[in-house]
Amino acid sequence: MSYDCIVIGGGVNGGSIAYSLAKRGKKVLLLEKDRVVSKASKAAAGMLAAGGEFVEDGPLFQLARKSRAMFPEVAQELRELSGIDIELINKGMYKIAFSEDDEADLKRIIEFQKQEGEKVDWISAKQLRVQEPRLSSAITGAMYLPSDGHVSAPNLAFAFLKSAAKLGVDIKEFIEVYSVIMENGIATGVMTTEGAYFSNQVILAGGAWSSKVLADTNIRLDTYPVKGECFSVTSHQQLLTSTIFSHGCYLVPKSGGRIIVGATEKANTFSQSVSFNGISGLMEKAKRILPAIVEAEWEMAWAGIRPQTSDGLPYLGEHPKHKNLFVATGHYRNGILLAPITGELIADLIEERQMMLDIASFSIERHVKQPV
Amino acid sequence: MSYDCIVIGGGVNGGSIAYSLAKRGKKVLLLEKDRVVSKASKAAAGMLAAGGEFVEDGPLFQLARKSRAMFPEVAQELRELSGIDIELINKGMYKIAFSEDDEADLKRIIEFQKQEGEKVDWISAKQLRVQEPRLSSAITGAMYLPSDGHVSAPNLAFAFLKSAAKLGVDIKEFIEVYSVIMENGIATGVMTTEGAYFSNQVILAGGAWSSKVLADTNIRLDTYPVKGECFSVTSHQQLLTSTIFSHGCYLVPKSGGRIIVGATEKANTFSQSVSFNGISGLMEKAKRILPAIVEAEWEMAWAGIRPQTSDGLPYLGEHPKHKNLFVATGHYRNGILLAPITGELIADLIEERQMMLDIASFSIERHVKQPV
Amino acid sequence: MSYDCIVIGGGVNGGSIAYSLAKRGKKVLLLEKDRVVSKASKAAAGMLAAGGEFVEDGPLFQLARKSRAMFPEVAQELRELSGIDIELINKGMYKIAFSEDDEADLKRIIEFQKQEGEKVDWISAKQLRVQEPRLSSAITGAMYLPSDGHVSAPNLAFAFLKSAAKLGVDIKEFIEVYSVIMENGIATGVMTTEGAYFSNQVILAGGAWSSKVLADTNIRLDTYPVKGECFSVTSHQQLLTSTIFSHGCYLVPKSGGRIIVGATEKANTFSQSVSFNGISGLMEKAKRILPAIVEAEWEMAWAGIRPQTSDGLPYLGEHPKHKNLFVATGHYRNGILLAPITGELIADLIEERQMMLDIASFSIERHVKQPV
Amino acid sequence: MSYDCIVIGGGVNGGSIAYSLAKRGKKVLLLEKDRVVSKASKAAAGMLAAGGEFVEDGPLFQLARKSRAMFPEVAQELRELSGIDIELINKGMYKIAFSEDDEADLKRIIEFQKQEGEKVDWISAKQLRVQEPRLSSAITGAMYLPSDGHVSAPNLAFAFLKSAAKLGVDIKEFIEVYSVIMENGIATGVMTTEGAYFSNQVILAGGAWSSKVLADTNIRLDTYPVKGECFSVTSHQQLLTSTIFSHGCYLVPKSGGRIIVGATEKANTFSQSVSFNGISGLMEKAKRILPAIVEAEWEMAWAGIRPQTSDGLPYLGEHPKHKNLFVATGHYRNGILLAPITGELIADLIEERQMMLDIASFSIERHVKQPV
Repeated sequence: MSYDCIVIGGGVNGGSIAYSLAKRGKKVLLLEKDRVVSKASKAAAGMLAAGGEFVEDGPLFQLARKSRAMFPEVAQELRELSGIDIELINKGMYKIAFSEDDEADLKRIIEFQKQEGEKVDWISAKQLRVQEPRLSSAITGAMYLPSDGHVSAPNLAFAFLKSAAKLGVDIKEFIEVYSVIMENGIATGVMTTEGAYFSNQVILAGGAWSSKVLADTNIRLDTYPVKGECFSVTSHQQLLTSTIFSHGCYLVPKSGGRIIVGATEKANTFSQSVSFNGISGLMEKAKRILPAIVEAEWEMAWAGIRPQTSDGLPYLGEHPKHKNLFVATGHYRNGILLAPITGELIADLIEERQMMLDIASFSIERHVKQPV
Repeated sequence: MSYDCIVIGGGVNGGSIAYSLAKRGKKVLLLEKDRVVSKASKAAAGMLAAGGEFVEDGPLFQLARKSRAMFPEVAQELRELSGIDIELINKGMYKIAFSEDDEADLKRIIEFQKQEGEKVDWISAKQLRVQEPRLSSAITGAMYLPSDGHVSAPNLAFAFLKSAAKLGVDIKEFIEVYSVIMENGIATGVMTTEGAYFSNQVILAGGAWSSKVLADTNIRLDTYPVKGECFSVTSHQQLLTSTIFSHGCYLVPKSGGRIIVGATEKANTFSQSVSFNGISGLMEKAKRILPAIVEAEWEMAWAGIRPQTSDGLPYLGEHPKHKNLFVATGHYRNGILLAPITGELIADLIEERQMMLDIASFSIERHVKQPV
Repeated sequence: MSYDCIVIGGGVNGGSIAYSLAKRGKKVLLLEKDRVVSKASKAAAGMLAAGGEFVEDGPLFQLARKSRAMFPEVAQELRELSGIDIELINKGMYKIAFSEDDEADLKRIIEFQKQEGEKVDWISAKQLRVQEPRLSSAITGAMYLPSDGHVSAPNLAFAFLKSAAKLGVDIKEFIEVYSVIMENGIATGVMTTEGAYFSNQVILAGGAWSSKVLADTNIRLDTYPVKGECFSVTSHQQLLTSTIFSHGCYLVPKSGGRIIVGATEKANTFSQSVSFNGISGLMEKAKRILPAIVEAEWEMAWAGIRPQTSDGLPYLGEHPKHKNLFVATGHYRNGILLAPITGELIADLIEERQMMLDIASFSIERHVKQPV
Repeated sequence: MSYDCIVIGGGVNGGSIAYSLAKRGKKVLLLEKDRVVSKASKAAAGMLAAGGEFVEDGPLFQLARKSRAMFPEVAQELRELSGIDIELINKGMYKIAFSEDDEADLKRIIEFQKQEGEKVDWISAKQLRVQEPRLSSAITGAMYLPSDGHVSAPNLAFAFLKSAAKLGVDIKEFIEVYSVIMENGIATGVMTTEGAYFSNQVILAGGAWSSKVLADTNIRLDTYPVKGECFSVTSHQQLLTSTIFSHGCYLVPKSGGRIIVGATEKANTFSQSVSFNGISGLMEKAKRILPAIVEAEWEMAWAGIRPQTSDGLPYLGEHPKHKNLFVATGHYRNGILLAPITGELIADLIEERQMMLDIASFSIERHVKQPV
């Protein structure tokens, strides 16, 4: 059987791409080397921090804002097709300050974001405690981002995949892609642990594992894995209603009184183990922000591996040397936020449609290296 | 601290009662002897089979229809308060026939239900396979119940409880009620593993464990536990879109390509173990209905303990001898379906409001026995 | 069917009693309200700290030493009958000092224990680090207890139960005992969620849940539950070889590079939830003792509910008012250590044999209260 | 850091090889792409069926017998070093007959095995039911293999690995080997997801994933994956004491009343999912052999991926073209049984010692293919 498109990777971006392609009538095969939604998409806290993550303007900030705006419609579509609620919450986010230096930093960011038309403002410690009375009294104020929110990351990934399946996408798990099959420099399929599959286009969306697939193409993506550790607590009482963001620690209140606390950053490892040290450090930070968290019930700890790039920008585009080979990876901490627009952009590229924004900054060739 | 009401039981009906009372401004304490949503409410397949479960008219059929009609509004309310989607699906249900005898039975039920104003009709095997092409060709037709549907049972239970908590209900887990405290024949609180709690009213919603709490009150509820075993499979392909109901076996398609197959019935045991025999028998029945299920992926098996009564009707009402002691149990296979109306009826009783339907048939005194 | 003996409780002591009785030819029924080995016996770290736990002489110290001496033979017997290895390790234990005050305290204990014939000695910080080079350099020395060790607590409990089953004991799970049936003040059986069972003797070994069973007997045991929280880490490297004991924190190295860290103490709750605070506090203490633990991998956290008494001594004996009703509970932190001797003592009592030590100090009547 | 040897694969054979090398003083690094003991070694039922698996003489039969003989000593060594009991049971095995044809087949095997000095005999149905009274009365007799037994497969794998770690082996998880580094045709290290590691020898023991590592070496191993599905049940009663073997189904009684039933065979897939069909078929076969199994409690189902070769013989030896590259894979259903001898043989090869048996039949070159 031949396919229009083969998508490599069963995470949130592979799922979004397969879904966008299927909506446009493509016959798609999605291949995942393990189980779908078993890596970074399962581990993410699901923040939609288009405002919260960026301290200066640039193409990624604009990409993030555009993707964030797509969520309400995506949530409805996916709920109808798959029955899965992505748990979209748009109650805003606070980046908190503990000192005058923090305040000065945040106020600079507020200025830049306001110029870009982002709804964002400074609020006093007093106003903050009206909203979130359990927060530490040591907090001196916060940047308030009313447009940011969060979703359930695993639900979003499953909803894309199951909606894609409903539209006819073939999903095959436990199939690892060794290499992309090339004919005259054009991608025509993939070689896998279960033999060859052929298609008109190949899209690589394997997260931190993407560069490995390209090892044989004489091209190396400049990405590296960054482990992030998280833990969660639960409470029948409402300890928090909005996402709180601080240096090296965020608290995301999920449905049913659950709070996810994340995330450490450890570069250059694919290990999904959780360290004593990682958890211990996060717990200290969380207590400093929300002292009442000590009353909550411990739930569990986990880790995910996110793909980072040397300039912090994702790769979105066609391979510079191999026609019909597309790459979508390097989303780092923004994989959930960027998933909706990633699917649409890749589908636009494949259909050679007008793009909704310029993606030259995310091109593959910007870092292409010869293999060692 | 004193409460208006104490609810005993952290399942779907305890949660619904606590939620209804909290909406009316009551200060409520909910006590659960284990974890909330750990017994029958966690195990249920979540069918809303007001039409599907009843073969003749009676008060329970009317109660079930009224409760079913409440779900769309309940789903929205709970989603807003708790962030939890109860996964309400209203795609209808089919009760299938394998023989002329089955057909005759189903057609008699159709007649009775039509008279009651239920939308229900016979459809041919050919029509059925248009809707559900994977069903067995041995099926000769089906009763179609377009108004029946299903929800996620654990989600519904959690959504009631977490919404109740948001409205101020205190939820305490791992506290077992030994007995109801009586003063002059009036319930004034409960004696528990962690001491006494006092309130104006006590509501017993402990499912199959309810009768034990009343052991000291010289009253014995005529209920008994019935174990139901289930299993689930998953598939990226859509094997089924509607609930299918047959003799001793139902298949409920849940979000994300999951199918729950249930349920055995074993009376007079509280054991939550799953037997080889139970699973083996259900698998045979499921294969007969949906041969394609053999391609699906095995997920897991589990069991729940449901409270049954000798006449098959639940207990809903005030205790005949002990004022301010209310009972809501005996829902058997309809605990999920009846949860919304159970909460409202108990709240109406406590507030001495006009009831939305006559509940005399569900009275506690109909079976009261002296203790052995 | 009638039994010689009914044992209430499927934990380590219920298992040991059933096993001892079965070895003596008794026909035994063991009843457990949940699953066997699901409470304190599953949660325990398994220390055999006959020397480590006691700071002064007394009947419990002698009981503990006698029970500890039984382990090598018990381990072999249970391995043969059940195939389960209890993972008995006899590498000794260290009670560590961080200050001169600590040292003085420990040296007093050493004196008393030496008088009792216990092999125990003070070792310097330097000697300690030869044995355990990863321990903190802030440790100033330790009391060394070469005779103490540890076992796998769940393995020991399962091994007793499965060996008992092999010798003919009937084990029934998910059956809760409401009350003991008395005829003319003599125990003749139990009333349960699944009806009555009859026997010549009834033995109550229900851990923290024991007092509830006696509520109807006009007798109340003076026990209360104490929650203990633990966590575990794993490492491919050997971070520790001996058990380390300090104020409010112990580290027990288990098979395969696992270390269990315990345990908090929270009285008067049956809640098996783990608190953020409990874990956070234990982690700080563990880091202070073994700084290298920060490199280990986080595994999980859990809690168990142990039965404590007001004078810290267990209850072992026949009920003062009800003949043929025997009680074995209140073992608090020594439930694993005392299990072998508990089984033998109860069996001796039932057979009216000569006891291997005087158990008057553990008698039931010492605290008997009239019910409230 | 440089190593003497790098072992690729954290399963039972990788663990055994690392352990044997460490015992001989080698500095070893073991790399595992996922978690150790997460694939076939975790899934296996642990039969030691040197007699039971072979119907004709050959080098594999002799290899299996020699390895089987090593278990008692291995069990003791590993228990001492790692604290892990491998649960070695030597109660024999029965290959059962349901017909005269079965009997004739088994009696032919008995003849051949007796000639080889194997203790093996025919026993009548009547004798069999004395030993195993719960077996089906349709069984007409059995081949009795008193020397065969079983171990806990995951325990054996963990015990090898943890004992190896204790002897100084570095174990690193979540590191995938891309390729073997060659200098002038000699293996000098491996290229991995976390960079290069160097050593004097490289040993490939990656089970079904081994051939992938060699993709770049212009050599392809003639192996293919075969999925095996299993399930387990538990019982407090002893339903079975010996391993029972029949066409396409075996029942292995494990410690504590657990029975593992296995195994299906599905070639050419790496999928670890369990199919409805696989489980359903095994349940039917198990019921036919041991009707009483229907009373047991369902525990769980799982699958493992075993490496098979076209002639059914494993690969054990040095790579024909690349010096210092050793291969140990293709053990198929005998991976647990052959682990002890595999470790010793590979260590002998590396040390250029006299081998304890001729391994020419297992040479790598017998099937070497040029890459496609």
